[in-house]
Amino acid sequence: MTEADRKNPRYRRSLELFERAQSVIPGGIYGHVTPALLEPGDSPYYASRAEGCRYWDVDGNEYLDFLCGYGPVVLGHANPEVDEAAERVRRDGQCFNHPTSQMVELAERLVACIDFAGWAVFAKNGSDVTTWCIQVAREATGRRKLLMARGAYHGTASWCSPGHGGLIDEDRRQVLNFDWNDPQSVEDAFNQHADDLAAVIVTPFHHPLFEGSSLPDEEFVHTVCDLCDRHGALLILDDIRAGFRLHLGGSHRVFGWRPDLACYSKALGNGYPISAAAGKPELKTAASKVFLTGSFWNSPVEMAASLKTIQLLENQDGIDVMRQRGETFTTGLARAAQGAGLSVRVTGPPALPFMHFENDPDYRIRHAFARAC
Amino acid sequence: MTEADRKNPRYRRSLELFERAQSVIPGGIYGHVTPALLEPGDSPYYASRAEGCRYWDVDGNEYLDFLCGYGPVVLGHANPEVDEAAERVRRDGQCFNHPTSQMVELAERLVACIDFAGWAVFAKNGSDVTTWCIQVAREATGRRKLLMARGAYHGTASWCSPGHGGLIDEDRRQVLNFDWNDPQSVEDAFNQHADDLAAVIVTPFHHPLFEGSSLPDEEFVHTVCDLCDRHGALLILDDIRAGFRLHLGGSHRVFGWRPDLACYSKALGNGYPISAAAGKPELKTAASKVFLTGSFWNSPVEMAASLKTIQLLENQDGIDVMRQRGETFTTGLARAAQGAGLSVRVTGPPALPFMHFENDPDYRIRHAFARAC
Repeated sequence: MTEADRKNPRYRRSLELFERAQSVIPGGIYGHVTPALLEPGDSPYYASRAEGCRYWDVDGNEYLDFLCGYGPVVLGHANPEVDEAAERVRRDGQCFNHPTSQMVELAERLVACIDFAGWAVFAKNGSDVTTWCIQVAREATGRRKLLMARGAYHGTASWCSPGHGGLIDEDRRQVLNFDWNDPQSVEDAFNQHADDLAAVIVTPFHHPLFEGSSLPDEEFVHTVCDLCDRHGALLILDDIRAGFRLHLGGSHRVFGWRPDLACYSKALGNGYPISAAAGKPELKTAASKVFLTGSFWNSPVEMAASLKTIQLLENQDGIDVMRQRGETFTTGLARAAQGAGLSVRVTGPPALPFMHFENDPDYRIRHAFARAC
Repeated sequence: MTEADRKNPRYRRSLELFERAQSVIPGGIYGHVTPALLEPGDSPYYASRAEGCRYWDVDGNEYLDFLCGYGPVVLGHANPEVDEAAERVRRDGQCFNHPTSQMVELAERLVACIDFAGWAVFAKNGSDVTTWCIQVAREATGRRKLLMARGAYHGTASWCSPGHGGLIDEDRRQVLNFDWNDPQSVEDAFNQHADDLAAVIVTPFHHPLFEGSSLPDEEFVHTVCDLCDRHGALLILDDIRAGFRLHLGGSHRVFGWRPDLACYSKALGNGYPISAAAGKPELKTAASKVFLTGSFWNSPVEMAASLKTIQLLENQDGIDVMRQRGETFTTGLARAAQGAGLSVRVTGPPALPFMHFENDPDYRIRHAFARAC
C-alpha cells in the first residue's frame, strides 16, 4: 500500500483487506480480477453485495455493474426467481452419490434449444469443457493436433492459458495457431497438417484479452467450416462467454458457424457455477469414452438455477432486451464521447460491447474514465 | 433397460430417468458414479434428497449414506448451520467482479491451521488445484518431470485421468510412476531423473480406484521426503479425499509427510463446490506466476460454507468423532462378517474405511451385499 492509497478514504476497507490478503494469498488477488491491471488506489478491490444491476464494494460505494459479474449475471444479481429455484433444491441436500432428475431435464432442455446437439454433459468451469471437448475430438478422429486463433481465450488449461508460468513444451506441442478473420492462415494450417488435425476451436466472435472484439467475416466462417468438413476435423465452438447472450439456440446461429461440439458456461446459470458441453449425435460414443467427472458435479442446485435462467431468458425475450439495451448504451457512449472530444471505439455485438479509447497507449484515459465512473 | 429392470418396481423411476438420460447424455450417467459399475436394476440411479446421514432415491427408497456424498459430506447432508452461513451471503449476490472478505478470511484460516502453509488459493474442482500445483512446482524448480504412484487417483486432467479416451503421448510424457510403499522404486526414479524432477505427488495414504487402501510405511515416507529434500524436488500432497477427515491441520500430520504444496477439496466445504491449494511461504512468488482463475471463483458462498465447516469440525471434535465412529463401524463389520462366515477386509484409516470381500473376483458377493443394504 502506498502513502497515496492510505490517504484515500474511499477504498480504505478494500485496501485493508488487500493488505491482509497479500500476506496469505500469492499476489493478494489472482487471475482475471487481479488489481495488478488497475491503477493502485483508484478502484475497489473487494465486493460486498449486489442486487439487480447495482453493486457495492466493502466501503459501501455503489456502482452500476456493466460487467455483469464478468459475464454470467444476465438476469441481474441475486435474481429472486433463480435463487428461489436453486434454494428449493438445496434444502434437500446438494452433494449426492447419484445424479438427480435436474441433470436429465437440463440435458433435454439444451438438446431441444441447440439445433445440432444430440446430447449434453455438465461440469463446473469453462476450462473443464473446452479441454474435454478437445479430448473428445481426439478420440473421435484418432488425431492429435488442435488449431486455435492467436490471442483467443479458451480458459486456464495448460494448452491455452494466457499465462506463461509453469508451462512445458509438451503442453502446446500439438496446438497450432491461425489469425482471426484470415482464411488463408487456416488454409495454410490445413495444407500442412490436415491428416493429423483433430479439431479447430473458435469463439463465435473474437474477444481476445485486453483488445477490441472482432466479428467474423462471412467468408472466414465459410472457409473454416468447409475445411473442417472436407478434411474430417471437428469444429468446436467455445461459446462460454457469448452463449445465451446472443441467441437462445447458441451463438453459432448468429454468425453461421456449423459446430460439431460446443461449450457453454457463464450466462447458463446466471452466476451459479456450471458449464456444459453439447455435441452432435454421432459423437456420443466418442464422448462416452473420455473420462469426465467431479466431486460436486451431481449437484442439482446449479442445474435448477440453469433451468430457471433459460426459462426466464425465453419468457422475458432476454436476448432481444440485451441487444436493444446494448444498442442504446453503445450509441449513447459514442455520442457522449464525441461531445467530450474523445475518440472511442466500441466493438463486439451490442449485447457484449467492448469499449476502448483510441490514442490511449498507456491506458491513462481509460483509468481516468474508470475512476470517474 | 432389460426386462428384469422393467419388472423391478423398486427402482422404476430411477430406470425411467436413466432411459431418458441415455438419449441425451453420453452413457446416461458419466464419471465415477456411472451405473456401468453396478449390476443393472440392482441399485438406484438417481437421488432425490438427503438429510444428515439419510438419503432417498427418486423412488422414495431410504438409505444410510456411508459414502458421505463420495466424501465431502462430513457434517451430514443439508447441515443447517453450514447452509445458513452460505445462504446468508448468497442473498447478497454471489458472482462478483471482485473477491470478497470471505476469501481473505478463509486463506487466513487455512494458513493458521496448516503448519507448513504460508498462503492459500481457491478453485472449484480437485483437478484444478492438483494440476495447478504441478505447474507451480515446474515454475519454482525450472524442471519438467513429475513422479506419481501407480494407480493413484489425482483427478480427471489428462496427465493423470484414469480414463484412456482422447489422450495423446504428450499428456504423460513427463509423468513417471513409482510403486506405493516401495522406496526403491522412488529411489530408482530419482537416480535416473533427479535433475529434471519438479515434484513428487502423493496422497497421504494410497487409495487407488477399486482396490483396498494402503497406509504408508514410515520408512517409505522418510525416503520420499528425504529424496525430495536432497534433490530439490517439491513434495505435493494430494489431500483432496482425506483432508479435514483425519486431522484439522492436514493429513500429512498423521503420517509424517513434509509437503511443500497441498491440495484440499471434498470435506473442506461439506459438499459446497470448493477446492484449495496451500503452500510454503518460499513458493509464493512461483505461485503468483502461474495463471489461476475461473468465472465463479470469487463467490463467497462456498467460502462461507467452508469457514463454517472448519469451525464446526473444530467445535464438535469432528476428527475424533469420525475416527471413533469409524472404529465402531469397521469393528462391527468385521464381527458381522465373521458371524456370517464371510472373509472381509477393511483397509484405510477408520475415518475413511474401504471394505471389500475376499475371494470375490467377479464382485458377486459385493453386489449381493450392496443389494441387501
